[in-house]
Amino acid sequence: MDFTAAPLERLIEQFEKMPGIGRKTAQRMAFFVLGQPKEEGLAMAKAITDACEKIHKCELCCNLTDGKYCPVCSSPKRSRSLICVVEDAEDLMAIEKTNEYKGTYHVLHGVISPLEGIGPENLTVKELLARIGPDEVSEVIMATNSNIEGEATAMYISKLLKPLGVKVSRLAYGLPVGSDLQYADSVTLTRAIEGRKDL
Amino acid sequence: MDFTAAPLERLIEQFEKMPGIGRKTAQRMAFFVLGQPKEEGLAMAKAITDACEKIHKCELCCNLTDGKYCPVCSSPKRSRSLICVVEDAEDLMAIEKTNEYKGTYHVLHGVISPLEGIGPENLTVKELLARIGPDEVSEVIMATNSNIEGEATAMYISKLLKPLGVKVSRLAYGLPVGSDLQYADSVTLTRAIEGRKDL
Repeated sequence: MDFTAAPLERLIEQFEKMPGIGRKTAQRMAFFVLGQPKEEGLAMAKAITDACEKIHKCELCCNLTDGKYCPVCSSPKRSRSLICVVEDAEDLMAIEKTNEYKGTYHVLHGVISPLEGIGPENLTVKELLARIGPDEVSEVIMATNSNIEGEATAMYISKLLKPLGVKVSRLAYGLPVGSDLQYADSVTLTRAIEGRKDL
Repeated sequence: MDFTAAPLERLIEQFEKMPGIGRKTAQRMAFFVLGQPKEEGLAMAKAITDACEKIHKCELCCNLTDGKYCPVCSSPKRSRSLICVVEDAEDLMAIEKTNEYKGTYHVLHGVISPLEGIGPENLTVKELLARIGPDEVSEVIMATNSNIEGEATAMYISKLLKPLGVKVSRLAYGLPVGSDLQYADSVTLTRAIEGRKDL
């Protein structure tokens, strides 16, 4: 499109790369950036540069952090004997928001997916196994998603962990709280029946 | 949220400022940026910096450009005697996409809105009036939006232009092409009847 200035077009293209952002939204975002005072736009550029340069994996749990250890791992209040294994840092944030979980995490940064050529060696499985010995871990909760890749990854890791004498558990699957039974899909309903608890 | 590293939180906050981007989307965008190779993230930061520093208003039509004049104004193929007045550069892009308009533009960068404290002096009205004399303009098309502010702005500018002997026109309002008559709102339908044409 020759009627758009090149730097503007490049900015739109950059925004368009992001997930959930189409051409129209990218355009709106670019015009918003240009419509702000210049300092605001430069502050956004700096935030991206900063994040790219300072954020790396926590040396213990592989969560994203700007320090040696992530805020969870460096907190003295968190139990090191309980590890919750999640696919990515976003899943970790979701669990943190419950304010209920007091253990630590391990972020895999993906799931085993042969179709996409992602094997256990591309994930942080090795780092997880290294934590089992010295940390005196009593339980590992597998909190990968309940799709095929997530289940396969949970199975794979639990098979590696069990010989080490660690209890491995999986998140409960069932009806979402507040949901209507008649609208639940049959797989979820089956899981809810299977996992029923005594009253 | 103390479980998020500060640079990451700042990045999420920056993305969240943009129109149509909520907390969740901002988070997804930030994690996408960090999930890419570092160079990709830095390229995005550079695109923003470049756009903020290089993009400014065209000296003639106030469209956004990185040169002295915007691509439309510098094109020898565009008629200088026809000016289409739009609210912002996004509206200009929408008209350019039709590939039908062969005149030039004038970008107001807003509309008159007393509620938000925006008067004609905050827009590029002065620059528009300055173009009328030397450019030998024969017609000005008011292409502001059809809401209260857009209509008021169109009326205000046309009153300034008419004494200068310029023909002032307004975009046609009526049924969108391909739409179903029964779903049209009554204001649009009224305008369509009022603006009917002989067959």
